[in-house]
Amino acid sequence: MPHHDRGSRMAAMTYTPPLNDIRFVLDHVVDLDRLLELPAYAHVDRDLVGGILEEAGRFAAEAIAPTNRDGDTVGSRLVDGEVVTPDSFKPAYDAYVESGWGALQHPEEFGGGDFPLVVANAFKEMLTSANMGFSLCPLLTTGAVYAMLHHASEELQQEWLPKMVSGEWTGTMNLTEPGAGSDVGALTTRAVPTGDGSYRITGQKIFITYGEHDLADQIVHLVLARLPDAPPGTKGISLFVVPKYLMEADGSLGERNDVTCVSVEHKIGIHGSPTCVMAYGDDSDGAIGYLVGGEHDGMRAMFTMMNDARLAVGMQGLSVAEAAYQQALGFARERHQGTALGAPRGESSPIIDHADVRRMLMTMKARIEGMRVLTYMNGIALDFAHALDGDEAAEWQKLADLYTPLSKAWSTDLGVEVASTAIQVYGGMGYVEESGVGQYWRDARIAPIYEGTNGIQALDLVGRKMGYDGGAFVTTHIESLRAHTTDDRDELATTMAAVAAAIDVLAETTDWLMGQRDELQDVFAGATPYLRLFATTVAGALLAKGASAALDEVEAGSDVDFHRARITTARFFAEQLLPEVHALAPQVTATARDLFALDAAQLA
Amino acid sequence: MPHHDRGSRMAAMTYTPPLNDIRFVLDHVVDLDRLLELPAYAHVDRDLVGGILEEAGRFAAEAIAPTNRDGDTVGSRLVDGEVVTPDSFKPAYDAYVESGWGALQHPEEFGGGDFPLVVANAFKEMLTSANMGFSLCPLLTTGAVYAMLHHASEELQQEWLPKMVSGEWTGTMNLTEPGAGSDVGALTTRAVPTGDGSYRITGQKIFITYGEHDLADQIVHLVLARLPDAPPGTKGISLFVVPKYLMEADGSLGERNDVTCVSVEHKIGIHGSPTCVMAYGDDSDGAIGYLVGGEHDGMRAMFTMMNDARLAVGMQGLSVAEAAYQQALGFARERHQGTALGAPRGESSPIIDHADVRRMLMTMKARIEGMRVLTYMNGIALDFAHALDGDEAAEWQKLADLYTPLSKAWSTDLGVEVASTAIQVYGGMGYVEESGVGQYWRDARIAPIYEGTNGIQALDLVGRKMGYDGGAFVTTHIESLRAHTTDDRDELATTMAAVAAAIDVLAETTDWLMGQRDELQDVFAGATPYLRLFATTVAGALLAKGASAALDEVEAGSDVDFHRARITTARFFAEQLLPEVHALAPQVTATARDLFALDAAQLA
Repeated sequence: MPHHDRGSRMAAMTYTPPLNDIRFVLDHVVDLDRLLELPAYAHVDRDLVGGILEEAGRFAAEAIAPTNRDGDTVGSRLVDGEVVTPDSFKPAYDAYVESGWGALQHPEEFGGGDFPLVVANAFKEMLTSANMGFSLCPLLTTGAVYAMLHHASEELQQEWLPKMVSGEWTGTMNLTEPGAGSDVGALTTRAVPTGDGSYRITGQKIFITYGEHDLADQIVHLVLARLPDAPPGTKGISLFVVPKYLMEADGSLGERNDVTCVSVEHKIGIHGSPTCVMAYGDDSDGAIGYLVGGEHDGMRAMFTMMNDARLAVGMQGLSVAEAAYQQALGFARERHQGTALGAPRGESSPIIDHADVRRMLMTMKARIEGMRVLTYMNGIALDFAHALDGDEAAEWQKLADLYTPLSKAWSTDLGVEVASTAIQVYGGMGYVEESGVGQYWRDARIAPIYEGTNGIQALDLVGRKMGYDGGAFVTTHIESLRAHTTDDRDELATTMAAVAAAIDVLAETTDWLMGQRDELQDVFAGATPYLRLFATTVAGALLAKGASAALDEVEAGSDVDFHRARITTARFFAEQLLPEVHALAPQVTATARDLFALDAAQLA
Repeated sequence: MPHHDRGSRMAAMTYTPPLNDIRFVLDHVVDLDRLLELPAYAHVDRDLVGGILEEAGRFAAEAIAPTNRDGDTVGSRLVDGEVVTPDSFKPAYDAYVESGWGALQHPEEFGGGDFPLVVANAFKEMLTSANMGFSLCPLLTTGAVYAMLHHASEELQQEWLPKMVSGEWTGTMNLTEPGAGSDVGALTTRAVPTGDGSYRITGQKIFITYGEHDLADQIVHLVLARLPDAPPGTKGISLFVVPKYLMEADGSLGERNDVTCVSVEHKIGIHGSPTCVMAYGDDSDGAIGYLVGGEHDGMRAMFTMMNDARLAVGMQGLSVAEAAYQQALGFARERHQGTALGAPRGESSPIIDHADVRRMLMTMKARIEGMRVLTYMNGIALDFAHALDGDEAAEWQKLADLYTPLSKAWSTDLGVEVASTAIQVYGGMGYVEESGVGQYWRDARIAPIYEGTNGIQALDLVGRKMGYDGGAFVTTHIESLRAHTTDDRDELATTMAAVAAAIDVLAETTDWLMGQRDELQDVFAGATPYLRLFATTVAGALLAKGASAALDEVEAGSDVDFHRARITTARFFAEQLLPEVHALAPQVTATARDLFALDAAQLA
């Protein structure tokens, strides 16, 4: 009698880059061609992008995906004050640096490729699907590069950026302290000027992603701290660059700076990514650091880092969902249980033939496509803002700002939900860690929390973004979504109608919120359901736009099966997922009354 | 500079039995008093129940809750063929046996207390909140006791039941095999008669909860297997009792039977509960077993076990949600971040004062109360079926049958959702395992899978339960829910209206499904959203019933704060959560078309 074979249940964990899906979104939803016509991207064309995406997909699938299980099962550990990553990580990271992926969207001046962010983000999507824990190291480096690009002096840029852009050195963001999480203004880390242009940094930071590791020679910490004369709150925060190793005059690495990792968190997921407690100046009168930007001007730089990171984190929801979906689909095709309706009596059917499993798969697929259109539109809006000037640029920047909390919060919530559905497709096998599908769910769970909790995103949406142009920007944008619902071909009728109905609900709830400006608590009370309503509707509208384009392709006889699938998925989203807006609207407009009706004793 | 203090973030993980909430549901929602008037429960009265619940709560909080973290961090391990549970488990289990909790609802004949199931379930709710992994051992034993009570011969009952009822011996359910999960009929374990009345069992079973452990002297396995002449499928399955140790004539334990645990699964959660791969007859011509019930009649016994277990598993969703909520509420009261609206400038507010955190807490609380009214009504329906006769008993049994898939699927889905919300309340701390809140989320994730996946529950609802009395039972029951919406006092107006609207949607979707009897695939396609719609509406209706009773109490001046909280929570549920039915209805009636529109290649 053969024993239960544990090995046979180890998932292969292969990852197939969804190149056709990405290409479709770039071509038919976010208008990459239009972007590439602008002078800023004269050096990029369609074919070049196609080649890059293919290479990127191959790299993610072949060099990175095989490291994913190691990341979870071995994890990164603190050993004698050093962080040891899984053995497979260092070769993978070296390959990442050698192939130049980290430099895609950065300026040529510092060794970058000056590619559109939306193209770099397509690479990031695939990298993150392949191994989310690994991808965080480049993600944080990118955020640090942005902060330096926008706020550091020319001298600091020349010193630090080239090797950060290449990935030879990695970057970190040091914001959080035990008493200062969502409330960044409460931080207490101190920076004292030495008189020679440098500063001495003392304090402790927590939740520092890749705060210490063995993948790169140098780690460049960006640290928020207070100068001695700093005012309280966020207005008294300055940003410093604090390297792991001090630099010699000749550009070589010198002595170790007084910054150490004192512990690594034991987390629910992303075990490959070391989440460090960092101590600054424990063994001296402070770690040596250099001011980035002006004194007390750290919050602006922080927002530069965070805005990039927020979209990137939103994309993590997409990435993990895509990877989990691929595994679940593969399992559903292979696993046989029961006899499906219509199958010959006594035949054991693959579970993909059961309607309930189909519902799970279609729901996952539609959500993934929805996340992709939203986050890619968010990315290309930043590209248009960068490539255009004046009012045009400003309008695109506002769109990117509006979409950022949507991308971050909605996609990360859905990432957890889709990964959970993948476990459900697996049934009992999904609850056993060897199947690997549980890792996606555990990994995904951090994304609704970090880079500003999803509750913070919702406040950003209703508190800041809704106020752009006195509210006119948001209402105008909502009306502009109707342009995607005008295709009157029969096949799209129910899709268009459902999206139009959702836009009505979005417009009504927006009006209601704008009418409560004197009752801020009511606005805050409705923020989270409003964000979900908003994002779902935008995704539905963009999927409808895609469905129109797909139907054009079908009518032209181009790749009919693929384009028909886009139409079906958009219809499924519109008809079956988008009605969620009718559940959310009453929450948006319920006011704060019942949220605060019970005191703490009554809540217990 | 103090280092980041890991210890300070270790949650105390205290558990407070929600006695007032349970008492309210028993008194005002499920009519325990009416049950206790029946002759079958003449030996039980209100005060006795009150005393038992208080004792039960104390036991769960003091004897069991302190073992919960051990269960997760130490877990149960296979050591030299034996399963070793965490050190704290054995004393806790001994205390459980000594205090007699396992015998509450079982017949006096075998040493039980003949208490109503709904009272025993209140104990189980608290036990499971205290430590879900631990509680599975009693849960499986109870299922085995039921199977023996209903299907075993008098002789087998006398031999096995007294010590199973007391908990001195534990029971297991051996159904699943690698190729037979949801499709139980595919199982291949064999049973060959020896001629002396016993059988020889050979085969392998997987996912056997507490299949081996060190908490009790004897383990009584109930095993599904096929006799040599068995027809294929579920009609050829027989049930056997297979003890870990053979019994001597004098009732003492004899030789070890040929049943062994060959591995213990590495699971996402419930680490305390050993999930075993069990080998029968590996080292002989079979483990010795005894037939329970008739030949080929094992499925009936299995359903007896599973129906009890399905409600119990549904209650796990409630239990874990309650425990996670208590932790989140405690954290929200203690953790200070930011300045809440209306608080003095510069003051650091407890996060419970932020509207978004309040929304999370109220959503958790309302869902918990909804799960409790549904599952307790499910339990007491079984008690009425037991205590009454004839048609009355049959009607209550049908209600219990109808509610069982609702309790199981809806509550377990919500259990995961509520536990996830608890992590979100904790923010970054929640993602660190030391906070303990992640354990609830990981533990809860098994419940939508085992004892029949939630997809299977939905098929049971639309495929079997909806067909009772040609559909009349379900439609009549739905109309009966309207009785809970007739209170016309102003304070309840919006609650009643929202529940009535949801009942309309439930009635309409039910009619639609019943009209598709010739298109079974469309019925299956809508099953899962229909179950959620149904359960949400029933919970809303029962909460409305509770709100009416609570308003009576308020008007009578009785415990006004507590009863006001019930009214508010019911209103929150009705106004803000129940509108989910409007999102679900389009899924119910969408037909199977788009679920099956894409082939496997298009899904990829």
